[in-house]
Amino acid sequence: MAKVNVGKKILNANDTYALKNSELLAHHGKRCFNMISSPGSGKTTLLVRTISDLAGAIKIGVIEGDIQTDIDAQRIRATNAPAIQIITEGACHLSAAQVHQALQKLPLDNLEIIFIENVGNLVCPSAFELGEDGKIVVLSVAEGDDKPAKYPAIFAKSKVLLVNKIDLLAAGALIDFDLERVKTDARRLNKSIEIFPVSAKTGEGMIAWYDWLKGQLARK
Amino acid sequence: MAKVNVGKKILNANDTYALKNSELLAHHGKRCFNMISSPGSGKTTLLVRTISDLAGAIKIGVIEGDIQTDIDAQRIRATNAPAIQIITEGACHLSAAQVHQALQKLPLDNLEIIFIENVGNLVCPSAFELGEDGKIVVLSVAEGDDKPAKYPAIFAKSKVLLVNKIDLLAAGALIDFDLERVKTDARRLNKSIEIFPVSAKTGEGMIAWYDWLKGQLARK
Repeated sequence: MAKVNVGKKILNANDTYALKNSELLAHHGKRCFNMISSPGSGKTTLLVRTISDLAGAIKIGVIEGDIQTDIDAQRIRATNAPAIQIITEGACHLSAAQVHQALQKLPLDNLEIIFIENVGNLVCPSAFELGEDGKIVVLSVAEGDDKPAKYPAIFAKSKVLLVNKIDLLAAGALIDFDLERVKTDARRLNKSIEIFPVSAKTGEGMIAWYDWLKGQLARK
Repeated sequence: MAKVNVGKKILNANDTYALKNSELLAHHGKRCFNMISSPGSGKTTLLVRTISDLAGAIKIGVIEGDIQTDIDAQRIRATNAPAIQIITEGACHLSAAQVHQALQKLPLDNLEIIFIENVGNLVCPSAFELGEDGKIVVLSVAEGDDKPAKYPAIFAKSKVLLVNKIDLLAAGALIDFDLERVKTDARRLNKSIEIFPVSAKTGEGMIAWYDWLKGQLARK
């Protein structure tokens, strides 16, 4: 019983900060997306390419969540975009309170979209709202086509699924990944999910993702 | 404060079962390894190949941990090895109590090594002892060479690091993965970690891993 009660209290405290974040972002007229995936699916590379390709079109800032190291924030800052690093020191997801602090440090007035790159974990971050406009789940083709079936929660909750590293399919190195299975399983969990197969490395498929982002700005 | 106390209580309850599991395994003279990785690093494929290649040499049973579906247990059973499925229904790691129940269902007398395939998650499972003889961390080359630096806990605690999918390096599809960086970073965290670069798909490097397993049996 104690476990259940305390778990609920923690979630409520988190939701209180999530609401604050949501109000802060709405007040400033900013869009915010919470990017979630396994370690190594390519979240940072996707962000670096998106920021570079959209330079001059969309002003992007990033909140970086990592268990250790600021390797990812350094990679973002190399694009000249502002990046605030949160080091969780072992915690398996970002909390809304951590994001609330990071939002104070970003130059919000100069930004249009804030990406939160969550800790690499396909499970825990899906349970914690951060005040975002939507979740974006990233799946690398190298992880296999059974992941929506095996880790359904995040696919059920996300606005967008980016299927990354499709260059590995083109290279013929991976012949046992069935993109149609991923689409079918993801849409069974979430009828309205937008799915973009992309390669952050070669740029293939990225235009459709950029168009979706631009559409989000038009809706603000 | 409440959070810390309750967390500690849960860990102690877990450790109680971990001790029971450890005693049960020692009593039967069995070896047990807890396999941990991100989703999609190839744990199940590694186990399927290991079981098949060692058929007649080592009798292996598997405890499968998944959030949803028994896809992985079905793959193991297709090799004729016994597999007990634990579905965690959202929980991000296996508990020692779950493993305790599963151990009762395995035909222990007919087995020499029990592999526990944990939930796909590079973070949470590292904090929960299951009564195993050692942890085995699996890293796919597609996940990138920065993972020991970014997710240090599991690399610090594991007996073995299997660097999987090295066929992707040979195919020239991945040119930005530095195996030496992985080795250096993992050994900085854990001087005694054994590192085997392997491809469960092509079989490359698997012999060294099998020799290590045989050596573990000799030590029981």
